[in-house]
Amino acid sequence: VNGAILCIGTELTRGEIENTNATWLAEQLTTLGVEVRVILVVDDDDARIREAVASAARAADVVVSTGGLGPTTDDITTAAVGRLLGLALKRHAPSLEAIRARMARYGRAMAPSNEKQADFPEGAAVLPNPHGTAPGFSVDVEGARLFVMPGVPGEMKPMFETNVAPFVRARRTAGMAQVRMKTFGLPESTVNDRLAGIEEALCVTIGYRAHFPEIEVKVRARAASDAEAAEQARTAAAAVRERLGRVVYGEGETTFPMAVGALLRERSLTMATAESCTGGLVGKLLTDASGSSDYFVGGVVSYANAVKTGVLGVDPATLEREGAVSEAVARQMAEGARRVLGADVALSLTGVAGPTGGTADKPVGLVHYAVATRDGTVARKILAGGHRGMVRHRAAFAGLALVREILLDAD
Amino acid sequence: VNGAILCIGTELTRGEIENTNATWLAEQLTTLGVEVRVILVVDDDDARIREAVASAARAADVVVSTGGLGPTTDDITTAAVGRLLGLALKRHAPSLEAIRARMARYGRAMAPSNEKQADFPEGAAVLPNPHGTAPGFSVDVEGARLFVMPGVPGEMKPMFETNVAPFVRARRTAGMAQVRMKTFGLPESTVNDRLAGIEEALCVTIGYRAHFPEIEVKVRARAASDAEAAEQARTAAAAVRERLGRVVYGEGETTFPMAVGALLRERSLTMATAESCTGGLVGKLLTDASGSSDYFVGGVVSYANAVKTGVLGVDPATLEREGAVSEAVARQMAEGARRVLGADVALSLTGVAGPTGGTADKPVGLVHYAVATRDGTVARKILAGGHRGMVRHRAAFAGLALVREILLDAD
Repeated sequence: VNGAILCIGTELTRGEIENTNATWLAEQLTTLGVEVRVILVVDDDDARIREAVASAARAADVVVSTGGLGPTTDDITTAAVGRLLGLALKRHAPSLEAIRARMARYGRAMAPSNEKQADFPEGAAVLPNPHGTAPGFSVDVEGARLFVMPGVPGEMKPMFETNVAPFVRARRTAGMAQVRMKTFGLPESTVNDRLAGIEEALCVTIGYRAHFPEIEVKVRARAASDAEAAEQARTAAAAVRERLGRVVYGEGETTFPMAVGALLRERSLTMATAESCTGGLVGKLLTDASGSSDYFVGGVVSYANAVKTGVLGVDPATLEREGAVSEAVARQMAEGARRVLGADVALSLTGVAGPTGGTADKPVGLVHYAVATRDGTVARKILAGGHRGMVRHRAAFAGLALVREILLDAD
Repeated sequence: VNGAILCIGTELTRGEIENTNATWLAEQLTTLGVEVRVILVVDDDDARIREAVASAARAADVVVSTGGLGPTTDDITTAAVGRLLGLALKRHAPSLEAIRARMARYGRAMAPSNEKQADFPEGAAVLPNPHGTAPGFSVDVEGARLFVMPGVPGEMKPMFETNVAPFVRARRTAGMAQVRMKTFGLPESTVNDRLAGIEEALCVTIGYRAHFPEIEVKVRARAASDAEAAEQARTAAAAVRERLGRVVYGEGETTFPMAVGALLRERSLTMATAESCTGGLVGKLLTDASGSSDYFVGGVVSYANAVKTGVLGVDPATLEREGAVSEAVARQMAEGARRVLGADVALSLTGVAGPTGGTADKPVGLVHYAVATRDGTVARKILAGGHRGMVRHRAAFAGLALVREILLDAD
């Protein structure tokens, strides 16, 4: 099955918003086994929408479009598709009722402009929208199946899952499966080298997606049935884990801070932070996960030296002698945080995030970090590349990786 | 001048990376006065690349393409363009030398695969790449000018600025100018309503870009010359400021935390944080800016109640009576942070970030926050909508907005 994605909206051709719909749809279709041949983005212009729909339909078996279904005058996708196909628009009574009911629920009166959202090309299948006023529709265009959906991601995604995904699955000639593995700690080229040969030996394809500073490894399998493909993907995933070891920290939607949190929770341990150059980022990452209060007690952001000494109890003489960015200070920060915040495990970071403040001895990107537990304190350092945001992000992950390593080694 | 953008790469049609190049190019071209008519994304397939180049050239006067100039076998953009135009590829000696020199500088030997990066269609103008091995080129296609650039953003952007931007400027029939204003505190529809009439009265166009939870307002002017357009844009920008007042916090690349930081710096004041539900996010936002150590001393992330009482000195009886998410606790957290961390201004936040933990009295999204200064403590609350990440982000900005309000009111 070949696919095409069409995104409609002048806000996209002007670069006013990121086209996250295109990326999401491309990933979903790929996972369903569809080869996406083209992604087209056009502004809200009747002629260009018609041309894009026609050209997408020529290129693919399934075309998914987003955008241009709103109530305003520049939302013209439905009319353009109708014109392209020579089909009159017809008002769909159940959709009109659903829009009216939805607006009443939010205490808003039905405007005439909303009524056009219930118009569809004659013969089109209506795709209900439980999350917004704009239903979608589906219609045949030059032998391809076109799915027209709204541009709001929260409305489009469920509509895709309810309508497009089953359509594609029913047309697939092969079974499909995918396992997404999350890794941290090796560059993409090394991960790639380590996995050499698995694709050929185990009949899968392996894809990579870099989410700095992590690499996601996707194992995809095709077989006679979905169950067979799942079996094949699981076998290959086991081989990937074998080759990468601890570098694989989880699967699917797991994040690295969540993986560290799960280890703490399993061991009934609590954690605290003492952050200098990361300024609160590690705490933010740990608490992105709901339920993190099970293990995260809190932290001290000791940006100023006075906070390092006054709150965390770092020795002023050490600070004077070694400087704030030093192994000795990182150790004392971690030990201080563990004591002051009353946690089992404490992670500290102190470094030069840049772009200024670097010296020959302590260049931009140098970060000392330490983890204190009841068994003692382990310190490390990294020299992270890139701009300030990258240095801070990389350092936060390195710190969390040291916590993970210590927890795993203790077993 | 009409434009088209073409992005080449299977990693894009598979959704493995976000297409940030397309958004950036669309924004740049729009700012230069180019009407972008289509954005095309295709995989690394010879026939589809040729078809996309031809179709983009028919739609536009200027076509910019990114991707497919690397050394590997799936990088075929140059060959496909040559084939489309019936032009043989010719090795460009100065480019070959530049690639060799660059690789030598990084201690790498020149591989045969790198040599093809010095091949260009006969007659094409070579676009040097000071930031990578792949030069770009520019050539006429069916009356349009095509610029072929690498996909790495750090290489593509300077190449665009050095080559495409001057080409477009030279062909513009009108002068252009833009002022970007950053706002926080009003929803997009309200900002839009408040600015009604400015476009018509002052001959500018106003665009909006939502970066949750902020709204950027872009004023664009066209006139006989760039200087005249700049004058027109400045007049309109002044009108926007007049209508929006304090909601405009800065221009260009200024971020909201930077704007708050600038107010602190001007007044020689220091700031500290006491964060519960935001878990360190406010500290992270403040320290995203280099030089924030001028005013930010640090913070306490008091996720657990024991940290609120033990480190910040919140009264256990208040905590017991009012609950952690309460005005009284927010006040004591801010006052405690100001005292313990030794800052002039302290911001605290405590709330229910969700998705679980909400009650009828204290629903998900409720956040109490307070700012303590030597003049006393001001407390506020918000009920933020959306998922956990949105609640936390919105709350962090609301807290920083209160700091800003207090600093501005004190003048």
